[in-house]
Amino acid sequence: MNQLWSHCHAITMVGGRYSLIEDAALIVVDGRIDWIGREIDLPKQHFDASHDLGGRWLTPGLIDCHTHLVFGGDRSGEFEQRLEGADYETIARQGGGIVSSVRATRESDFETLYARAEARARVLLAEGVTTLEIKSGYGLDLDSERRMLQVARELERRLPVTVKTTCLAAHALPPEYAERSDDYIELVCETILPTLATEGLIDAVDGFCEGIAFSPAQMRRVFDTARHLGLPVKLHAEQLSRLGGCRLAAEFGALSADHVEYANAEDARAMAASGTTAVLLPGAFLTLRETQLPPIDAFREHGVAMALASDLNPGTSPVLSLRLMMNLGCTLFRLTPEEALAGVTLHAAKALGIDATHGSLEVGKVADAVAWDVTGPAELAYWLGGQLPGVRFRHGERITA
Amino acid sequence: MNQLWSHCHAITMVGGRYSLIEDAALIVVDGRIDWIGREIDLPKQHFDASHDLGGRWLTPGLIDCHTHLVFGGDRSGEFEQRLEGADYETIARQGGGIVSSVRATRESDFETLYARAEARARVLLAEGVTTLEIKSGYGLDLDSERRMLQVARELERRLPVTVKTTCLAAHALPPEYAERSDDYIELVCETILPTLATEGLIDAVDGFCEGIAFSPAQMRRVFDTARHLGLPVKLHAEQLSRLGGCRLAAEFGALSADHVEYANAEDARAMAASGTTAVLLPGAFLTLRETQLPPIDAFREHGVAMALASDLNPGTSPVLSLRLMMNLGCTLFRLTPEEALAGVTLHAAKALGIDATHGSLEVGKVADAVAWDVTGPAELAYWLGGQLPGVRFRHGERITA
Ligand SMILES: [Zn+2]
Ligand SMILES: [Zn+2]
Repeated sequence: MNQLWSHCHAITMVGGRYSLIEDAALIVVDGRIDWIGREIDLPKQHFDASHDLGGRWLTPGLIDCHTHLVFGGDRSGEFEQRLEGADYETIARQGGGIVSSVRATRESDFETLYARAEARARVLLAEGVTTLEIKSGYGLDLDSERRMLQVARELERRLPVTVKTTCLAAHALPPEYAERSDDYIELVCETILPTLATEGLIDAVDGFCEGIAFSPAQMRRVFDTARHLGLPVKLHAEQLSRLGGCRLAAEFGALSADHVEYANAEDARAMAASGTTAVLLPGAFLTLRETQLPPIDAFREHGVAMALASDLNPGTSPVLSLRLMMNLGCTLFRLTPEEALAGVTLHAAKALGIDATHGSLEVGKVADAVAWDVTGPAELAYWLGGQLPGVRFRHGERITA
Repeated sequence: MNQLWSHCHAITMVGGRYSLIEDAALIVVDGRIDWIGREIDLPKQHFDASHDLGGRWLTPGLIDCHTHLVFGGDRSGEFEQRLEGADYETIARQGGGIVSSVRATRESDFETLYARAEARARVLLAEGVTTLEIKSGYGLDLDSERRMLQVARELERRLPVTVKTTCLAAHALPPEYAERSDDYIELVCETILPTLATEGLIDAVDGFCEGIAFSPAQMRRVFDTARHLGLPVKLHAEQLSRLGGCRLAAEFGALSADHVEYANAEDARAMAASGTTAVLLPGAFLTLRETQLPPIDAFREHGVAMALASDLNPGTSPVLSLRLMMNLGCTLFRLTPEEALAGVTLHAAKALGIDATHGSLEVGKVADAVAWDVTGPAELAYWLGGQLPGVRFRHGERITA
C-alpha cells in the first residue's frame, strides 16, 4: 500500500530544526515515509491513494514523553479546597495529596482505570499527539503497578497512538512502608521491576529523586536493577532542590532527566556527555507557581536536547494539552518556537529512545504527522490554548475519531 | 416548540454561586428556560422534543466578555523574533507591534477579515462559548473601524453565538496622527462614534487609558460622547500603571473596567458603588509576564463582580481558550473555581449588560448551556488546557458543528 501526500509545506524537524521543505510531497509506503521532497521532484509512479493537504503545514506527530495519564479519581476537589483556603495539613488529614491518588488507583479495577485514562488520552490525541509515554507510580504494589501498565498497553491497542510504558514504582513511599523506605526500594528492585519486566510491561524505569521522595543512593539501586534487566532509565531530578539526580542519570546513560529546574551548568555538561535529554515540564512549574527556571542557556551551550511534556498528573500538573506546553515553554522558559516544536517531536522521541523511528519527517521513519491550518510553524507555539484545526495521520492512516 | 432537558446536575450560577440542583431537569420553550428544578418535581406535560443529558453537569453557556477577535494578519512572526533575541526596537523598525496589526487590518477586505475571525471564533465556540464580545480598535479610521464591527455582526449571523460589539476606536494612536492625539480623539468623538452608532454597529464604547495610549482627560471626552449617544462604556484601565481609569469608569457607571492589575481598594469601592464589573485578563498577565496582581481581596471585600476573559488579541494575549482563563484565574490570581465559573458566566454577562437574559440557568433566560462530561464543576477550572468533551446548546438548540 503506497500513498501520496501532496500540497503541503513540510516542517521536517530534521536535526531538531524546522528544516522546512516548501511545496512538499511525501510518499508513504506501509506506514513509513518512503520519499520526501519538493513536489516538483516527485518520482512519477502509481499511487494506491493520495491526500491533497490543501497547502497546510505538515509537522511530525506530537510526542508527549512524560505523562502520568493513568490514575484513579482526580484531585479537582482538593484543587478547589486549597483555593478556598484549606491549608495543606487539613487536606492531608482528609487523605489528600498523592496518597489519595494511590488509594483511588488501588481501588479502581482495570475497566474503570482504563475508561478514565482513555478519556484523557483522547483529549491529548485530538490536538495532534501520536505517541505517549505513560508512567505507573500510583499503584506502589505489584498488582496495582501491573494494572496501571496494562492499562497503558491497552490504550495502544484501542487508540491510534504509540505508547511507551515507564515503571515508576519508585514514585512515592506507600503508606504501609512509612519510615521504611529502604524496604520499599527492596520490594521495587527484588519484586516489582523483575516481575513486570518479565511480563513485557516495562519499556523504561523511572524514579523520583527528591527530599520528599527517594535519595540518590536509593535511585542508584533502582538504576542498577534496571541495568541488570536491560532496561533504559530516566529520572525526576532537581525539581525542588539539587540532590545530584542529573549526575546520577548521566552516569547511567539515562534517556532523560525530567523537571531539572535546579540543575546547573555542571549537570548540563554531564547530560550532554551521556546524551541524556532534559525534559522540561512547564505545566508543573506554572501550577506550583515555581520561580526557579531550568538552566536553558547551559543546555543550549552544551548541546543538551530539550524536550517539553505535559507531566499530566492529578496533583501538580493536571495538563490536557501538549501544544499548550509549547506556548508555556516559550512564555515561561523563553524557548524559541522552533525549540518548542523540537521539544514535542524529535527531542521527545530522543527522551523515549525512539528517535531512530519517530520525531521527524525523514525517509524510513513512521508516517506520524499533523497537517495544520496555520500560516507557519511559529503559530503552534504562539496561540495560548484552543484546539488548532488540522488533519492527523498515524502510521500513514488518516485519524478521524 | 417546547422541549425537555433531563438527567443532569445543574450548576445554575444563580447569584454567582454554583447554586447546584442535583438530578435536575429543564423545560425550554422557544429558546428560553421555562422551568428548572429537581427532575422528580417536573410538571407532567407533553414535550415536542427531549434531551437525556446522561447525568452530565450542566452550566450556563460560557461568555467571553473581552476579545479583540477581529484583526488582520497575526503576530506569530514577531513572537518568534522576540524569543530568538530581537529587541523591541528592531521589531518596531520592521513595523512590528500594534501598528502592524493596524496596517494588516486596514489592508484586509471584509471577506479576508471575516474568514480569519470565523476560524478563531470556531475554536472558542468549540469548548463551550455561546456569547462573545468583540472590539474594534485595529482600524483607527472610520472605514476600517466600521469593517471590523461589520465582521463582528456577521459572525453572529453565521455562527451559533451571540455577539456584543464594542467600539474601541480609542485603542491606540494611528500613525497619521502621531503627536496629535487630541486631534485623533476629536475624530473619534465627532465622526467615528456618532457615525457607527447611527449605523447600529456599536453596543458599547471602550478605550485604552494608559501612558502608552490615552489620558483620563481624553477618555472623559470619549465617555461624554458615548453618554450623549446613549451608549454604555467600559475601559482598559490600570493595566500597567494607576492613572485613575477605574475611578473614571465608576464615575460614568461603566459596565466594566478591564485588566485592573494596578487598581487599589479605593478603586474597588468606587466600582462597587457604580456596579462596574472588574474584568480580569490572566492571558495577557501571563504573556507579558507581569507580576502586579489585581486586588482580588479588595474586589471580594467590596462586592465587585469579577469576570474572566480571553482578551484574545494578536499581540499581548493570543488566547484561544476561555476555559484556560478559568484555570489561570485560579492558578495566577487565586480565584476559587466557583469564582472562575461565575467569571465566564453571570459576571461576564454583567460586564456586557446582559445579565438579565444571560449568564445563569434561570426561568426567563436564554437556554444557552453546556453539558460537561465531568465529575463536578471544579474540573472546569482544574484541567490546564485541552478541550473537555460536552454537549452544547444555544437558544435551546443543540450545536453540532
Ligand atoms: Zn512526572
Ligand atoms: Zn483588551
